[in-house]
Amino acid sequence: MAINIFMPKTLHAFLRPTSTSLQKCAWKSLETHTSLLDVEPIGRDEFLERQRRLASELEKADVDAFIAEPSASTAYFANISSSYELSERPFLVILDRNGSASLLVPRFETGRIGGLDMVFEGKRIIEWREEESAYEVLVGRAGYRKVMLDEHARFMIASGLKERGVEVLPASQAIQSLRAVKSESELDILRGINEFTVELVRNLQKCIRVGMSQETIVEAASGLFTQAGVGSGFWSIVLFGEQAANPHGGGKGRILRDGEFVLVDIGTSLHSYGSDVTRTILPPKSKVSRELMDIWHLVHDAQTAAIERMNINETCSVVDGAARDVIREKGYGEFFTHRLGHGLGLEMHEHPYLNGVNGEKLKMGEVVTNEPGIYVTSVQAEKLGKQAGFGVRIEDAVLVTENGGVVMTGSRAISPYEP
Amino acid sequence: MAINIFMPKTLHAFLRPTSTSLQKCAWKSLETHTSLLDVEPIGRDEFLERQRRLASELEKADVDAFIAEPSASTAYFANISSSYELSERPFLVILDRNGSASLLVPRFETGRIGGLDMVFEGKRIIEWREEESAYEVLVGRAGYRKVMLDEHARFMIASGLKERGVEVLPASQAIQSLRAVKSESELDILRGINEFTVELVRNLQKCIRVGMSQETIVEAASGLFTQAGVGSGFWSIVLFGEQAANPHGGGKGRILRDGEFVLVDIGTSLHSYGSDVTRTILPPKSKVSRELMDIWHLVHDAQTAAIERMNINETCSVVDGAARDVIREKGYGEFFTHRLGHGLGLEMHEHPYLNGVNGEKLKMGEVVTNEPGIYVTSVQAEKLGKQAGFGVRIEDAVLVTENGGVVMTGSRAISPYEP
Repeated sequence: MAINIFMPKTLHAFLRPTSTSLQKCAWKSLETHTSLLDVEPIGRDEFLERQRRLASELEKADVDAFIAEPSASTAYFANISSSYELSERPFLVILDRNGSASLLVPRFETGRIGGLDMVFEGKRIIEWREEESAYEVLVGRAGYRKVMLDEHARFMIASGLKERGVEVLPASQAIQSLRAVKSESELDILRGINEFTVELVRNLQKCIRVGMSQETIVEAASGLFTQAGVGSGFWSIVLFGEQAANPHGGGKGRILRDGEFVLVDIGTSLHSYGSDVTRTILPPKSKVSRELMDIWHLVHDAQTAAIERMNINETCSVVDGAARDVIREKGYGEFFTHRLGHGLGLEMHEHPYLNGVNGEKLKMGEVVTNEPGIYVTSVQAEKLGKQAGFGVRIEDAVLVTENGGVVMTGSRAISPYEP
Repeated sequence: MAINIFMPKTLHAFLRPTSTSLQKCAWKSLETHTSLLDVEPIGRDEFLERQRRLASELEKADVDAFIAEPSASTAYFANISSSYELSERPFLVILDRNGSASLLVPRFETGRIGGLDMVFEGKRIIEWREEESAYEVLVGRAGYRKVMLDEHARFMIASGLKERGVEVLPASQAIQSLRAVKSESELDILRGINEFTVELVRNLQKCIRVGMSQETIVEAASGLFTQAGVGSGFWSIVLFGEQAANPHGGGKGRILRDGEFVLVDIGTSLHSYGSDVTRTILPPKSKVSRELMDIWHLVHDAQTAAIERMNINETCSVVDGAARDVIREKGYGEFFTHRLGHGLGLEMHEHPYLNGVNGEKLKMGEVVTNEPGIYVTSVQAEKLGKQAGFGVRIEDAVLVTENGGVVMTGSRAISPYEP
């Protein structure tokens, strides 16, 4: 599970002028992971291949074009970053059923758009001027009748096209699957960054001590990613004891006490692909109750049950159910409050979603997080006759194969001491 | 004209541990502007009145509800900030034709949503759980047949509703006008922050000297806004000489030379409402050619011509044309490369737009920027037999009244020395 906690790259430098001692302690074996930087970004040929596949799907669906605003979809098909800031002047990336590409460009922003590092075999630039309607210009030049629009595009784009007589459909599942199913190069990147992220958590675990603050751990983690050259996409949630009863966290400044879990949900990005890992850990000499240890292993068992079902053609809701059944059997069903997982790639959360309602079938090469959890607030704990609230979650990104899931993190957690 | 140049609030403190000398110099008369902080934010009654007006428009249009994701529209109608980070789980703000309000809330995010400081007379919370379809839950509970969707909502919201049989329309012009037409409280805020912004530029002008860098001026401006308590929305474009030939700028690290204009396009926000001011200035002892001074006054004349037309019921394209005619008559028509202006309020750029194609009529109480410009690149300048490229723009936010426009900046520019 990941939420976007914004941390600008430049701010890091100011916050940590020098390495913290926790960062120094945890850096040891990470140094050998410099191979991470050798992982190749997506090559030009692969972008062009993606465009060809899209064209072929459009042809099959009898649709003239796929249209997107800068988003994960344009990053995928043409290397146009989702971080391009949208303005009220439509800038659209358009891929036709015949394989050709067009950009609908506000003349006034040609400079900003011209500076983008995009990949096309060739492209047509359709400029619209300040005294023209962007949609009228597009429809006049391209003559589209029926298009598919990216789900992240603003509704104003759909309305503008529709007003000019264009039928506007959502992207088909076949087109969404193009991005959900990962290529070998994408798997290399995802494996590289997710393995590194788990390794980083393992090294942190060895160095975390009772008495440390949440912020100390976040800063060290941020510093470690930065040291490794992958600091710009960093985000994290670090929660102690009953703080973790809320899956998305909240609360600051807590000091770690003996006998409580540390939940670390953390990630960054490499070549725009994300990592997303959760470990519920204990510092080397810290202990929790037998009951909490059992809950840790119950969550782990739930993850196991779902990994075994993450084979091709399995229904997403069935995978979600497999983990849920394990937890429900032990009486904790109501405390597993969120879906099992989500696709991971150019977006931290993307298709397919593993939840109780998604009837989609898993496909070979999809990468999906598997992250069961049990969350009991202090109020709930009291009713159950327990001492304090807690939260346990274990998360790995998993590759769908013919024979069940294969973790993208190198290896799974073994215990709170061997995350 | 404004583009969003992101500058996180916290970063400011790190960049400027102490005031720069330019900042100290320019602060003098700004201190007296502390009245700015007495400007009241929008009150609860006004939010409720906005909701009643929206309901009345929905009733007239025979539409069940207006639906928005967190955006300027939700900030306007219910004080739900546009900075709320969207996730893949739909969170919708819904206002019905009968005046009642609902929130469609992912159960998993109730904590995050519950913490919002929103304004409603009463509201219905429609929770959807991880194993449910958000749209199915909404349609099941509310039974909508026809709704209007905010233009900034993602297309996935429109598709999701449509798939459940709901007719989804764009917001009518009457509904867009609710936000475009400002109330007295909104005008107080807009006037306060735009007057302050111009005053800040005037003070900077007195202190800017040949030899200063762009960054020195940006840092001082940022520091001044922060000192005045309105630093968090700060953005700026500062361009010297031929750099200003590109209206949106680009280029860094230039040192100001004698004989060139400084273009300052700058703003911030107060109670979420924006300021957006451009002045083309000269340091006290600096001079430009007679020709450049003539161009400055030509742009000023164009602004005058358009202000005079900014009365109620004038067509937006006619106002744009009024400024354009003045510049075209002197042979610079092709160098006025952008629209005349845009609405200003909770968004830096919002309806109505003053361009050559908008047939909308201006309404009493709308606030719209009036920002003609002439931009000549060095390449173009050479062809015209001139020495170097340049850019001149003058921009004030203007209130539409019965008798033409009234500037929201207190007073207009008089010359590059009296901006």
